[in-house]
Formats: sequence, structure tokens, C-alpha cells
Amino acid sequence: MSGYPHRHLLGIESLQPSEIVAVLDAADGLREILDRPLKKVPALRGKTVVNLFYEPSTRTRASFEVAEKVLSADSVSIAASASSAQKGETLLDTAKNLEAMNPDMIVLRHSAAGAAHFLARHCRAAIVNAGDGAHEHPTQALLDALTLRQRKRRLEGLRVAIVGDILHSRVARSNVWLLSKMGAKVVLCAPPTLVPPGIDTLAPVTHRIDEAIEGADAIMMLRIQRERMTGAYFPSDREYHVRFGLTEARVKRAKKDVLILHPGPMNRGVEIASEVADGPYSVILDQVTNGVAVRMAVLLLLLGGSGGPGDAEQPAAQRASAGSTPASPAGGRR
Amino acid sequence: MSGYPHRHLLGIESLQPSEIVAVLDAADGLREILDRPLKKVPALRGKTVVNLFYEPSTRTRASFEVAEKVLSADSVSIAASASSAQKGETLLDTAKNLEAMNPDMIVLRHSAAGAAHFLARHCRAAIVNAGDGAHEHPTQALLDALTLRQRKRRLEGLRVAIVGDILHSRVARSNVWLLSKMGAKVVLCAPPTLVPPGIDTLAPVTHRIDEAIEGADAIMMLRIQRERMTGAYFPSDREYHVRFGLTEARVKRAKKDVLILHPGPMNRGVEIASEVADGPYSVILDQVTNGVAVRMAVLLLLLGGSGGPGDAEQPAAQRASAGSTPASPAGGRR
Amino acid sequence: MSGYPHRHLLGIESLQPSEIVAVLDAADGLREILDRPLKKVPALRGKTVVNLFYEPSTRTRASFEVAEKVLSADSVSIAASASSAQKGETLLDTAKNLEAMNPDMIVLRHSAAGAAHFLARHCRAAIVNAGDGAHEHPTQALLDALTLRQRKRRLEGLRVAIVGDILHSRVARSNVWLLSKMGAKVVLCAPPTLVPPGIDTLAPVTHRIDEAIEGADAIMMLRIQRERMTGAYFPSDREYHVRFGLTEARVKRAKKDVLILHPGPMNRGVEIASEVADGPYSVILDQVTNGVAVRMAVLLLLLGGSGGPGDAEQPAAQRASAGSTPASPAGGRR
Repeated sequence: MSGYPHRHLLGIESLQPSEIVAVLDAADGLREILDRPLKKVPALRGKTVVNLFYEPSTRTRASFEVAEKVLSADSVSIAASASSAQKGETLLDTAKNLEAMNPDMIVLRHSAAGAAHFLARHCRAAIVNAGDGAHEHPTQALLDALTLRQRKRRLEGLRVAIVGDILHSRVARSNVWLLSKMGAKVVLCAPPTLVPPGIDTLAPVTHRIDEAIEGADAIMMLRIQRERMTGAYFPSDREYHVRFGLTEARVKRAKKDVLILHPGPMNRGVEIASEVADGPYSVILDQVTNGVAVRMAVLLLLLGGSGGPGDAEQPAAQRASAGSTPASPAGGRR
Repeated sequence: MSGYPHRHLLGIESLQPSEIVAVLDAADGLREILDRPLKKVPALRGKTVVNLFYEPSTRTRASFEVAEKVLSADSVSIAASASSAQKGETLLDTAKNLEAMNPDMIVLRHSAAGAAHFLARHCRAAIVNAGDGAHEHPTQALLDALTLRQRKRRLEGLRVAIVGDILHSRVARSNVWLLSKMGAKVVLCAPPTLVPPGIDTLAPVTHRIDEAIEGADAIMMLRIQRERMTGAYFPSDREYHVRFGLTEARVKRAKKDVLILHPGPMNRGVEIASEVADGPYSVILDQVTNGVAVRMAVLLLLLGGSGGPGDAEQPAAQRASAGSTPASPAGGRR
Repeated sequence: MSGYPHRHLLGIESLQPSEIVAVLDAADGLREILDRPLKKVPALRGKTVVNLFYEPSTRTRASFEVAEKVLSADSVSIAASASSAQKGETLLDTAKNLEAMNPDMIVLRHSAAGAAHFLARHCRAAIVNAGDGAHEHPTQALLDALTLRQRKRRLEGLRVAIVGDILHSRVARSNVWLLSKMGAKVVLCAPPTLVPPGIDTLAPVTHRIDEAIEGADAIMMLRIQRERMTGAYFPSDREYHVRFGLTEARVKRAKKDVLILHPGPMNRGVEIASEVADGPYSVILDQVTNGVAVRMAVLLLLLGGSGGPGDAEQPAAQRASAGSTPASPAGGRR
């Protein structure tokens, strides 16, 4: 598992292509564990992970928890809105306090851009950014890339359209970084009100979805965050769907083996038609499975994954994917 | 553990009597694990269970979690009100997403009748209905039946009164199905406003509690869901207690070895007097302990419970109850 | 681990000095486990702990959860506000119901003074008070004492100032009991509106912080519970800081090797200046680490900590701190 020299995973922007490949390769090797009848390897036994979520989340938190449990780490999940944050404590004090309990890793979701970087500067624990405001969501970009690479056998040269609410989307930002670094050609598409200033220095921007999709190998649809934007950014859900929603008719403009991605949760009938979400080009549920594999890879790469004394010579991820479960006949040697 | 051919536990209505007996027998065998100093068997090591609760619940969720942990399954609990449901995602999308993380089972509580059946039609994971609206709550009926059978040595021929808010009660509905299938004689009792239309085709209904209790072997009191019904269904808590509350005086009309059951949480002084709830006929806390045993049985029956290669010949539940804990001297062989 | 004859930990008031020492000694022995690369001992395998929290809490709940997981206990956490409490169930019924699931311990936080004592009178499970209203928070006082003893090598004869909102503080009350029993000299300091009646029979009270700090070996700052007290108890945060906040200038009045403690969460700039909280005398993060060690000690002392048959002769805490991890080569014998 050489090629991964970082203590934290804070964003895609600071990663080298070889480091991205290291995560994807590890995740590819680990994914088969999830298909086993007994999904449990002892790689991270005795490691403690704190999942500190300042924003509600089903899938990302569940995905990290499943990854932690499959690898036999101990996990403690804190929904911070229901706790010290109410009492006025700063993020740093909460994190320092959790860190003083000696966890090996803190997985952080926070509404402020830069929150994970801030923690990394002040904590010894490995920090994984599980989404910081509208800034980055690196494990999402990695699982998207894993999904693309599994189907297309490469990332380089792929034409990828990212469509929707780019302004509020950490997913878009992490994906633009990752895909650009790996040699894919990204086109961004959003209504003028939902394009963040300066993004066009990273990738070309269009306001016409048909143009963005034309000839695409993959279309990544972004979630419209309806809870924040009634009326302010576009006239109505229906109007949005007409102008920017992904329909079967529009999919026809892409390559005939196009892949449709969405980070979820989906607003069916707004940014994506149900026929497309559930259709033959959709790899949306693959993304979710790959999410667990990517998070397992990140856990192992950052925590070193020493499953026990006898295993010390082997790289962690290789060991985990080769290893049998604790219930196996060979378990006694571990 | 023959006699249990289903992939899911969605309700009692669709079960054969032999399948009900299979769960009760398994639970009887498993219950002693809960009395051990070390309550841990490796039967479900490497199995992942997602507890997806769209309604608040202390006891049912805790009961499932304890059952899962005693059996060494990995469990991830999602309180869905605090998560994607807020963002407008459909139940199916949430479940499909959780399923894409490859859990072996999803335990679902949801406010809509039919929610568990809906998931079962669309998911590969085993689905356990932990309460769907006012429809069914099968593990509650099974634990009630286990409690009755332990004390009375049979279900057939028992006279059972079910008293209270039948209209809103999934517990009542599952119990009517189960007790009728097993040959017990059920009498229902509620104010006219709390009787659902058509229920009298399943069991006789009376509006007089004294008549319902007369000669009963068991009385199942239902929770008055005060939060939904101030004034609308009956004049006041006090009035309800006078006309439908279970008091010591009323218990005297039942058989002298009557059993008093309540699914909890109780409204003391409303549907049940404290002297009765805490009195000699009450088996209310037995129900709770049996709840863990029943859920262990359901987990094992549905998940196959392969504790490890060496155990493969033995039925899962039998293996688990015979098996020693991982800390035992024989543990090294596992 | 002789010297600990209690089934519960309800408060400091009822403990003998030797029993306090027993917890501190055990915690001292256990703390090194937290510095190991693999923080996992099998001491409480097969034991189930329910964390029942009726008030929001990050650090105390996380601290107990980490302690439970390091010792390999199974833990189930219930945030009771989101559950049966909403449905009008009494604390006793909730606890009896959880107890009927046969947990070995219930860790309770509740807003009512005496809640833990109440449970202990009615439950068989070991009860640990994790804070009951403004009454006691014994594990906090124990971790404070552990922190002082590690640095000062003794508690007897230390001069300790406790400053702030004594009226609402269970931390203050538990610390006054503990420090007095162990022979420390306590001085209390608060605005007149924040001194509970009768407290001056336990320790002298002053309203002048400079007087309280003079010559102190340790200063324990209490959290101002701003959410409850806008305007009612003191004019403003700023005014409070001027008159009762701990600043660098004020620290100079204490001994030159003074220790600064705070139970958290801190209101920086109100009861404590940031320079002091992060300064050279602060042992605030030590307190947090010691909190996990103290909770591990309490778990082991109360639950007997039988890690397995072969270990039965050895005292639990000694065994745990000497024991190797489950992944060690010797693991097969366990």
C-alpha cells in the first residue's frame, strides 16, 4: 500500500494522482469482502474511530460505520447537533476533547468549509473529511471514480458532465479535482445562479444541459438542496426539471454506454427522472457499495491496519482482503 | 430449525402455525443465554443488521440491538427522522441505499402500514417488520405468545381478552392473528370509537371490559396513545380509566391464575392501575425478556446463523444455545 | 481490587476514602491501555451496558462508550428524550424494561436529583450515575481527583478553589465531597446568586475570586450554563468574566505550579480566558483522558470483569491492564 504518505484525508485537491490510484486499488481489493457470507476481517481490531457528524446524514454515516465494523474497528458515533454544540462549545474544543480519549481517527462532517483542515492542524488523530460545507467530500469523489473505473477500465480521457447545483456542492468540487487530476474531461452545467465564481478556471461551464451531455461517457447529477432554496435560485421544482432535469430523452445525447451517477439522496422528478435513476445506465447503487469499499480503503491506509502481531510484514489492505474471517479455521493463528 | 421457510418476517397474518411454533421453540432454547454471566455467542459473527427506525422507540430498538449483540452480529442503527427523510428521500431509496451496503438484514419501523412488505418486494436483504403503522408488529405478538406458552404450557384453548385502543394498535392486530391461528379464543374490548371496522370478522368485540375479562386466562392491555387523542376518542384519561382501565377489582373476574400483559410503554392510572401492573399476575417484564429471546430466534432463523465452518452441520439456534462463549476454553477451535 | 464493596456508583457522598482510592488505583493501572496501538482487552466480553441519557451529552457518553468498547463490553446507547419519555413513560418503567433485557449495568444521566439512587433501589443491574440534576456526577469528581493525584502525588493537604456556578453544578458537589474526604482544603467561590443554601457547611464560601485563588494548588472552573441564565443570575457574560473569569493575571495569585481544571464544555471568554484554558497550567485535556480510565475502572470494579474462565483468580483490573489484546499470540488460550 505504498503511495499513500498522508496522515489525513482532507480533500482531493491536495492529492497526487498516484495517491488517488492507491486508494482506488485498495478499495478494488477490499470490495469482495462485502460479498462474503461473513463480512468481517480483524484488520483494525483495537482501533477506535469517532464519527463526529454536525449535519444529519444517513448514508455517509452508515457507510463509514459499516466499513469500520467490517474491519473490526470500534466506532463511536456522535450527532453533534444534539450535544455540546448546543452548549456553545467550539468545534476545536469538542474535537480536542474527543481526541483526548485517544481515538485513532475522527471522521468529521461539518457545515463549515475548512473544518476538517482545521482539526487536522490541531489534532494527532487521523482526520477524514466526510463533507465540509460546500468545500470537499473526498470519499464521495473517490467512490465515484471507483465506480467509473470499474465500468470503463480507465479515467483518463473520459468525458464527464457534472450537472446541477454546483454552487452548494462539495461533491462537485471534489469530483472536478479528482477527474481533472486523473485526465478526464469535465464539463459543468448549472443555472447561472448556481455556478460558484471562479469555478470556470477548473472546468468549462455551460448553462445548457444538452450541450453538457453531448457525447458524455458519464453524467453525474447533483442533488438540488430544496430545503435551502425555494424560489431564490430558480422558479420551481417543475421549471428546474424542465430545464436541467435528466430525462430519458436527454440521456440519448450521451454515448450509448453512458453511466449515470448521483450521490443521493435523490429528488426524483426534479434533478433526475425516475426512469433514468432506475434505468439501465444508472450505477447509483453501485456507487453506494463502492462507498463502503472506499471507506474501508481509507481506514486501512490511514490507520496502518495492524490486525495482529503475526501479520506485521504484510501491507494492511492486502492482508485484509486476503485474510479469512475470525470464524475461519485459520482464526486461531491470528 | 426446520419449519421456517420465509426470507422475511413481515407479519403474523401470512405465517403457518408450524412456523409460529418454530420461532417460539427457537426462542425458548435461546432464552437461557440471557441468564449467563457472559451473554455472547458467535452465531452471527460477520453478519450486518441495519436497524432503520422512522418512529422513536426505546424498547423495541434496544431489544433488537441487544439480540444482535448477544449473537455477535454487527449492527448499525439509523434514526431516520434525523436523516435523509428530512431531505425528501423516499423510503425505497433510503432502503435501497442501505441495502447496497450489503447488510444481511434490515429491521424496519415505519409509520405507514405495508412499509415492510414494500421493502421486502424490492430488497434482497432479509426484512423484519418492527412495526408498520397500525398494521402489524409480529415480534411483539411472538413474544406475547412465548410468555403465555411458558406460563400456561399451551396456547390452544386459552381465553384471551385484548383491551384498549384497538383502532391504532398493530400489537392487537398481530396478536389476534397469532392467537386465532394457534387455537386461542380472543375477545376484543374497546370504546366504540376505538374499534376498527371489520375487526369483528376476526374476533368478537365487546364494549364492556367486565364481559371481556370474565373467565379470561390472559388479559392483554393496550397502550392508550394519549399524544394523538385528547378529547377526540374519549372524554378524559380519568373517564377512560373508570370505564376501560384494568383495576384489581376487575382482575377478580378473570381466572384465578390469569396473566396480565402490556406491550409498554404503560400509562399508569389510565389503561392500567399501578397495583395491577406491578401485581402478582403481571408478566409485563417477562414479556420484555422474552422479546430479546424472540428477536434472537428471528435473527437466527432468517440469517441462517453460520457461526463458523465447524458448526455447519448443526441447526443455528440449537448451535447457539448449546455453544459456549468466545471466552470459553473451547473458544480456540472456533 | 479489594476495597470496593458497592454494587452501584451513585455518588461520592456515600463512599469511604479507601473506596475512592480503590477506583483511582485501578484507573491508574488501566490508563496505559489507552496509549497502546491496539486499545482492546477482553475483560468485559459478554457483558452488556445500557447508556441511558435523558440529557444531551457528547463527552460523558462518548467517554463511557469508549471505556466500554476498550473493555470489549457490548453497549447500547439510548437518548431517552427521543423515545419513551415522549410517550409519558416513567423513568422507573423505562429502566425496568431495559433491565428486563438483562444488561449488567445501566449508566444513567437524568435531569432529576436522585434519579440514579431511585433506579438502584428498584433494579438488579449495576447503576452508574453519570449526572443527576444538580446533585452528583461521581465519575467527574473521580477523574478530577485522578488528574490532581497524578500531578501532585497526593490529595491530602492540597488547597483547591472551585469557582463558578456552584448552584447548578453536580460537578462542584461531587468534588466537594471527594476532596474533603481525601483531606484536601476546598474553597468555594461564586456570585451570591449562584451559591446553594447550606453549602457553606461543607466548605468555606467567598464571593471574591482573588481570595479563593490565593495560594491554591488547583483551580477548578465550573461551566456557566448560559442557556438557563440570561440576566437572571448575573448581568452579562462580560460582567461575569470581569468579576469571576479566570485570567492569566489572576492565575498568578495561585501557587506557581497550580493546576487549572474545567469539566467542559468551556465558555471561553466567560468563565475562563482562552490563554488560561490553553496555557501551561491547564490539565483540561488530561482530565478527559483520565475520564476514560476512571470509567474503565468503575466498569471493572462493578462488573467483576471476568474475561474468561482461565482468568478467574486474578483481580479484574490487574488482569485487564496486564492482559494482552485478543489479537495477541496468546489469544488462543482465552
